[in-house]
Amino acid sequence: MDRKLKETKSDVIAGRNPVSEAIKGGRTIDKIMIAKGSKTGAIVGILAKAKEKKIPVKEVDSKKLDFLSGGAVHQGIIATAAIKEYQTVDDIFALAESRGESPFIIVLDEIEDPHNLGAIIRTAECAGAHGVIIPERRSATLNYTVGKASAGAVEYMPVARVTNLVNCIDSLRDRGLWVFGADMNGTDYTECNFKGAVAIVIGNEGKGLGRLVKEHCDAIVSLPVKGHIDSLNASVAAGILMYQIAKQR
Amino acid sequence: MDRKLKETKSDVIAGRNPVSEAIKGGRTIDKIMIAKGSKTGAIVGILAKAKEKKIPVKEVDSKKLDFLSGGAVHQGIIATAAIKEYQTVDDIFALAESRGESPFIIVLDEIEDPHNLGAIIRTAECAGAHGVIIPERRSATLNYTVGKASAGAVEYMPVARVTNLVNCIDSLRDRGLWVFGADMNGTDYTECNFKGAVAIVIGNEGKGLGRLVKEHCDAIVSLPVKGHIDSLNASVAAGILMYQIAKQR
Repeated sequence: MDRKLKETKSDVIAGRNPVSEAIKGGRTIDKIMIAKGSKTGAIVGILAKAKEKKIPVKEVDSKKLDFLSGGAVHQGIIATAAIKEYQTVDDIFALAESRGESPFIIVLDEIEDPHNLGAIIRTAECAGAHGVIIPERRSATLNYTVGKASAGAVEYMPVARVTNLVNCIDSLRDRGLWVFGADMNGTDYTECNFKGAVAIVIGNEGKGLGRLVKEHCDAIVSLPVKGHIDSLNASVAAGILMYQIAKQR
Repeated sequence: MDRKLKETKSDVIAGRNPVSEAIKGGRTIDKIMIAKGSKTGAIVGILAKAKEKKIPVKEVDSKKLDFLSGGAVHQGIIATAAIKEYQTVDDIFALAESRGESPFIIVLDEIEDPHNLGAIIRTAECAGAHGVIIPERRSATLNYTVGKASAGAVEYMPVARVTNLVNCIDSLRDRGLWVFGADMNGTDYTECNFKGAVAIVIGNEGKGLGRLVKEHCDAIVSLPVKGHIDSLNASVAAGILMYQIAKQR
């Protein structure tokens, strides 16, 4: 477990100058965390630059920064670097077109566990999907742990980050995709028609699909569940659905 | 991450007297770890009792004990408690019989990641399997992290621990099960006949199925893999196979 801690740290850029230089140098920043009450001095300038580059900024307790920086001086600001550039939804469509295939896209509604995000990216690559879409906020990001859990699939599978997932789902539908949300009380997954252009939306580990997200899907698809537990792990559910889609294509 | 550490600690019994009392008191012990070179004094007596109760004992670096005990005095010995009693292979058969179903069993060949073990137990419960079999050594055990990752499914899904997995597979075959090993270059999973009494064997996260284990399976089942990555996460692969089996039953 101490090994994991070290690995996590390798994504972390701590301190005003290092964060500022990383942004200037064009490094892909996942997000910036600032300690509560530290929007002063040089940090104000850094935040302005972050806004320009659309880097999400989060205010956290300064103890969290102490922990993430492993005790190093952070001066109230930490940035986490992405191990891979995010791509755009257009890149995903371009990949599908280059392969002469109908788009097959995985949309993740606030998957928070990096192991789940990594495993889903890995499965998406193995199932022949064209890309994964995540929201900017309340989602695991392309950090070291995700890269490792993906077994290297982050190198091949485009991951796009969007500001508003509901708008994104609407635009996928406008572009001709049939969007399935994975949730309870929907159509049994073996009875869905997954041929053609499809997206599946997987919900958060605890809360499932957001209400609005769910309302904007074309249909709800469900995995039958026996026994005493009412849902599967998010990456397992995503895997079963992706392989069902792959089988039909 | 520090929260996780605390949780892990809650399984840990440190020191000669506490470990000795836990064994005497009939607590289900997952395993005992002793520091290298500490097989002296009271520890000898504790190890004799452990052997009687078939508790696995592992020699580790004393730094590992320092880490696991969170700095508390461990006197060279730590036991980890199981959050749930292990059951027997016979218990698994009895559960299948009580439901009037052909046995459907998951065998795990050295799954080491507790998140994978937990997710597999959760999926087994949701797919209607009757039990999970793990080996005594080189396997994640029923600890707190596994229980949490199983979303409570450990309470319902029997997990049996066996000394020798190859012998266990032979005995499953003697009892009429068709044993499928999950590996590359086997029959496509959509073409396998999973009706009747079946077991599937899932290999270690890094090494896959052991050579002997593989040789003792009746057949090898494979998941087709596209793209650049040659395998799925163990719990995702197990999930896709379990749901394929459930669909056929």
